[in-house]
Amino acid sequence: MNIIVDAMGGDNAPEEIVKGCIMAANDFGEIITLVGKKDIISEHLKKAGYNGDRIKIQNAEEVISGDDEPTTAIRQKKDSSLRVGLDMLHKGQGDVMVSAGNTGALITGATLIVKRIKGVRRVALAPLMPAETGCFLLVDGGANVESSAAFLKQFAIMGSIYMEKIMHIKNPRVGLVNIGSEEEKGTEDVTEANRLLKEIPINYTGYIEGREIPCGAVDVVVCDGFTGNVILKFMEGMGIVIKRMLKGIFFKNLKTKIAALMVKGGINELGKTLDYTEYGGAPLLGCTKPVVKAHGSSNAKAFYHAIRQSIDMVNNNLVDTISENINKY
Amino acid sequence: MNIIVDAMGGDNAPEEIVKGCIMAANDFGEIITLVGKKDIISEHLKKAGYNGDRIKIQNAEEVISGDDEPTTAIRQKKDSSLRVGLDMLHKGQGDVMVSAGNTGALITGATLIVKRIKGVRRVALAPLMPAETGCFLLVDGGANVESSAAFLKQFAIMGSIYMEKIMHIKNPRVGLVNIGSEEEKGTEDVTEANRLLKEIPINYTGYIEGREIPCGAVDVVVCDGFTGNVILKFMEGMGIVIKRMLKGIFFKNLKTKIAALMVKGGINELGKTLDYTEYGGAPLLGCTKPVVKAHGSSNAKAFYHAIRQSIDMVNNNLVDTISENINKY
Repeated sequence: MNIIVDAMGGDNAPEEIVKGCIMAANDFGEIITLVGKKDIISEHLKKAGYNGDRIKIQNAEEVISGDDEPTTAIRQKKDSSLRVGLDMLHKGQGDVMVSAGNTGALITGATLIVKRIKGVRRVALAPLMPAETGCFLLVDGGANVESSAAFLKQFAIMGSIYMEKIMHIKNPRVGLVNIGSEEEKGTEDVTEANRLLKEIPINYTGYIEGREIPCGAVDVVVCDGFTGNVILKFMEGMGIVIKRMLKGIFFKNLKTKIAALMVKGGINELGKTLDYTEYGGAPLLGCTKPVVKAHGSSNAKAFYHAIRQSIDMVNNNLVDTISENINKY
Repeated sequence: MNIIVDAMGGDNAPEEIVKGCIMAANDFGEIITLVGKKDIISEHLKKAGYNGDRIKIQNAEEVISGDDEPTTAIRQKKDSSLRVGLDMLHKGQGDVMVSAGNTGALITGATLIVKRIKGVRRVALAPLMPAETGCFLLVDGGANVESSAAFLKQFAIMGSIYMEKIMHIKNPRVGLVNIGSEEEKGTEDVTEANRLLKEIPINYTGYIEGREIPCGAVDVVVCDGFTGNVILKFMEGMGIVIKRMLKGIFFKNLKTKIAALMVKGGINELGKTLDYTEYGGAPLLGCTKPVVKAHGSSNAKAFYHAIRQSIDMVNNNLVDTISENINKY
């Protein structure tokens, strides 16, 4: 397997990306191709003391930054690490691509270059999010601002397949985000999607309200990309605030510092539950080849997990399974 | 002033409602009219030892439950506490109404019976939510599933007036929920609302992403009712989960219990920040008379705060100020 990695994407590129790839190459035994400025990448590989043969470099002179407008960047920055990586994936010069770069550009590029699976209406971003009990997949986390009932139905099918094949959850529970539990509540798209989801052989448990999401009431949370992105970022914001408040509580004085030591393990666990960046990358569901969006602030360890996730996606034939099932219902 | 109170609405009615009203009658010196089953209310007043003359009772034989379909309930349950209370408010037999009952029925009833201020396109539910620094008003928290740009503009104006007049925040910062900071990002309604909000004399600070909301980046968070309701309930759910996890951490063994005692004050403060029910009721913005939705799970103290809030709304001429400003821009 050859894993294509955008070496220049994200806040900590390329240093942390390179470090994560070295760890992954050593542990997983697959080939990794780092795409980006050859000199800089070589330097970082050298600096990290890597002298194996599993990491290759593909030169790309340009970089798409977080501020670049996605469509323009993909069309104009033809020699950017993100674009070159996607071109390689499209041509079969790799099996999966991982990037911590510009999310919009990755989604746009994956749609335009790698293309959608036949029958898939929209590519969805599907971050894995922490919950009180385990975790859940949020589809769509922001790829599609507006999502019709037909899109929502496909998000549910793809999300369900992901949780079953990659997270090994049998018969994953799928919930549709709404603002009440009554059948006819919500937007037209949501009520129509509710009808569609009842007719297909997934474990659809009905509407889910915001209150039930953090408990882990379902394994797949389906919603339009606007709502999903607000949930994703609101959770991130609350995590940051609560961590900062806990710090304030525990670092107040000597007594509270001692208390902190006494509950250290538990508080660390809580911190992990509040930090969705701990949960690896977000797969792009619906492309003809697997693509993983690693969090923009990924450090080496987070990126290492995103690579493991990308390997799982290839080994478990995620794309084929989606392709086989998406047109059935 | 005469405050009309739905004595039968909410999870803890009528006992906690009656208790809260007794506290409020004693402290604020206004007349309170409890609407509901006379015998039961009298019994609770007696049980609580109330023998003042500031609390009146208006009999109403029916009760609208949380499961009732709002429009049907308002039309058919003509002798329900909620409907009778709104009728009284409409007829001028009271100055403000407070209810912890069925949210949908209260919004529908307020719109149909008390009616909208001339020029107001939609009534909005505006819960006050806790943030790291202070609190913010969420408009709309769920009254309008879909909200056009014109609605969003009015939510911003009404929310801004509320925070200025009732919460005494000078020049309140107003943010519009979106999934990015770029001008053209988001739905058509949101980008159009962004243009409209720039043209009016409120302190509009632009788009706000989910991440910035819990920090208290703005005083008024404007969004459609679907997104607002998801935010509201997601925050509630996260609060419940985090409190439960903290309990688990601190009640594990003797050592952790001692640690709990050492940081008790701080943890209690954190608990309050996580619990939006602590923040009083949600005003309905845009009606010709002030209406306050108290949280369904309100206890006596929460209801007491909702009554204080309703008095503030009357004393500070909220309705008149909205009426004077809503058609100006």
